[in-house]
Amino acid sequence: MENSIGLVQTKYLNLDKTIELESGKCLKNIQIAYETYGKLNENKDNVILICHALTADAHAAGYHSENDRKPGWWDAMIGPDKAFDTNKFFVVCSNVLGGCKGTTGPASINPDTNKPYGHDFPVITVEDMVKVEKELIDYLGIKKIITVGGSMGGMQAIEWAIKYPDYVDSVIITASAARLSAQGIAFNAVGRNAIISDPNFNNGDYYEGVHPERGLAIARMVGHITYLSEQAMHNKFGRNFKDKPRFDFDVDFQVESYLEYQGRIFVDRFDANSYLYITKALDYYDPISKYGSLENAFKNTNARFLVITFSTDWLFSTEQAKEVVGALVNINKDVSFVELKSPCGHDAFLIEFENQTKIIKSFLKKCGE
Amino acid sequence: MENSIGLVQTKYLNLDKTIELESGKCLKNIQIAYETYGKLNENKDNVILICHALTADAHAAGYHSENDRKPGWWDAMIGPDKAFDTNKFFVVCSNVLGGCKGTTGPASINPDTNKPYGHDFPVITVEDMVKVEKELIDYLGIKKIITVGGSMGGMQAIEWAIKYPDYVDSVIITASAARLSAQGIAFNAVGRNAIISDPNFNNGDYYEGVHPERGLAIARMVGHITYLSEQAMHNKFGRNFKDKPRFDFDVDFQVESYLEYQGRIFVDRFDANSYLYITKALDYYDPISKYGSLENAFKNTNARFLVITFSTDWLFSTEQAKEVVGALVNINKDVSFVELKSPCGHDAFLIEFENQTKIIKSFLKKCGE
Repeated sequence: MENSIGLVQTKYLNLDKTIELESGKCLKNIQIAYETYGKLNENKDNVILICHALTADAHAAGYHSENDRKPGWWDAMIGPDKAFDTNKFFVVCSNVLGGCKGTTGPASINPDTNKPYGHDFPVITVEDMVKVEKELIDYLGIKKIITVGGSMGGMQAIEWAIKYPDYVDSVIITASAARLSAQGIAFNAVGRNAIISDPNFNNGDYYEGVHPERGLAIARMVGHITYLSEQAMHNKFGRNFKDKPRFDFDVDFQVESYLEYQGRIFVDRFDANSYLYITKALDYYDPISKYGSLENAFKNTNARFLVITFSTDWLFSTEQAKEVVGALVNINKDVSFVELKSPCGHDAFLIEFENQTKIIKSFLKKCGE
Repeated sequence: MENSIGLVQTKYLNLDKTIELESGKCLKNIQIAYETYGKLNENKDNVILICHALTADAHAAGYHSENDRKPGWWDAMIGPDKAFDTNKFFVVCSNVLGGCKGTTGPASINPDTNKPYGHDFPVITVEDMVKVEKELIDYLGIKKIITVGGSMGGMQAIEWAIKYPDYVDSVIITASAARLSAQGIAFNAVGRNAIISDPNFNNGDYYEGVHPERGLAIARMVGHITYLSEQAMHNKFGRNFKDKPRFDFDVDFQVESYLEYQGRIFVDRFDANSYLYITKALDYYDPISKYGSLENAFKNTNARFLVITFSTDWLFSTEQAKEVVGALVNINKDVSFVELKSPCGHDAFLIEFENQTKIIKSFLKKCGE
């Protein structure tokens, strides 16, 4: 636990109000799972809100117990003297709405039926996720935040600045963009098809039976192809066999073995319905279409922006992120942009800590000054 | 039928010898489906062998009947005055071993059991496909050919030059390479997983019941993502909805509708087992690993090579094809290389006829001179 924030625990906030969603539907009794690291200062203005990507959770840093083998998913970035320095900042991270790690999602109990929502869970959007995060920030009595996110987390960070311009002092997005490409939607669609086609899916109401594990594993395999660059896959596995050519249809190449493994371990920690709902939210998010242009979307923002991309990320490419940068420049907003050279593809935001830390530290120096 | 070779028919050759495969297993009673266009000259040296890609067949040009709505899959390239000019050349195209369009494959009757092979069909390789094509060429009494292929067809064209150097006068490969990338293998692995996970797959022995159609459709969806460039997908569909956001998990975006359609129509024309076997052959082909280097693989070839790539093809990228070009240059073989600018991705070899025709016509002018 050296160099870590140490032992942390997940807390829960239960909202007693009903939240109206983008779809027009409502959700009541929402629970929010969240963690905090560092100390909130007296003015409550040293707050960083970390927004997570597709399959992560509120446990962004530290350890849950002395015996934990692994720390939170962004532990390398959050802690004493790290990019998000817990000696200075009060860092908050919550599980997104629709997730399966403590915040209300399709596997949660529907108070109207006392059974898991399953397919009765309403389709949610990134806007809805942010609306729920705002409830948490209000509960904590905070009125000024820095929003930060990688991948889908970046979309939430952006949405915060658009929707609550008076709250957001700065925005940091990494390996993210204002919207998914057609190709990104296509990959999500294939993943959802694999889940829905699983005979155990049962129209989303599978909680009392066998879960659609094969479908979810296949969706995860598709995902992992898009998280790695072609070069990273080549460097990691090349065309190497696990052993030698098998001349059958079992796992043959190392890259197959990697995907199979990623699929297999994923089903133990993630709910297939959450995968459906969250990828859908990803697909839908599109402030350009909603506001007519990104310039219009960002018109009222008061935040400084830092946009970080990775040279071999083809899921959230530099070109896509430049839409954000270009729009902010066009309307004279404060924006910094860095493309980091990395062979790691989209996963780079979870791997390339050193360069991200340098840039983020320098950007955060100006905060609150 | 204007500007077409006109009415054609598929012919069948039944081999009476047993073919030993790369795996060491044997296949007997192999049937080869093939078509020919144009006239074989007296010297039998005006022959072009077209090798097809993953899901095509022997019907490369012309129409099967007056009422046919669509001609063969490369009709724009094969015919009078076309790239492969049937006024000059005798063009041959056969369905690959393992296919489902007339040549023996997993859906064929196993003479030992009088039932479809199903999962008893042996794993085959590109080398095996070429070995069977050689039987056809021998049967036709031909000793000199030009081999041509796009995508996996290009691998067969290359293998011909390596394996039968005295037979092959020229090689034309388009949107192809000497071997698939790790990423290419990964996509095939996902497709195979979708098929094998389909509850109707039944370990490949599904011919008397319902076929694993959902699995095959999902495999095809994955394939189609890789056939289009990101740019082509953006241009064709962008982030447009089919109608408006549905807020459910039915087909929402136009790109989803496209993939769904491609999956749906594919299952009517293709066998899931053939998809497994042929993608496996694609994964396995690797003359670099087999011969230690491409230079060594090409050492004894006597052919002139033409290598065509497309700028946005990311399944068989220009960089991959340059491995072939570089190796041929290194050992002083005759090779021409053109990268065509195209937004169409891998599919370009089935779309960009004009530029391919110009280059191929010019290359073929020298043949037989």
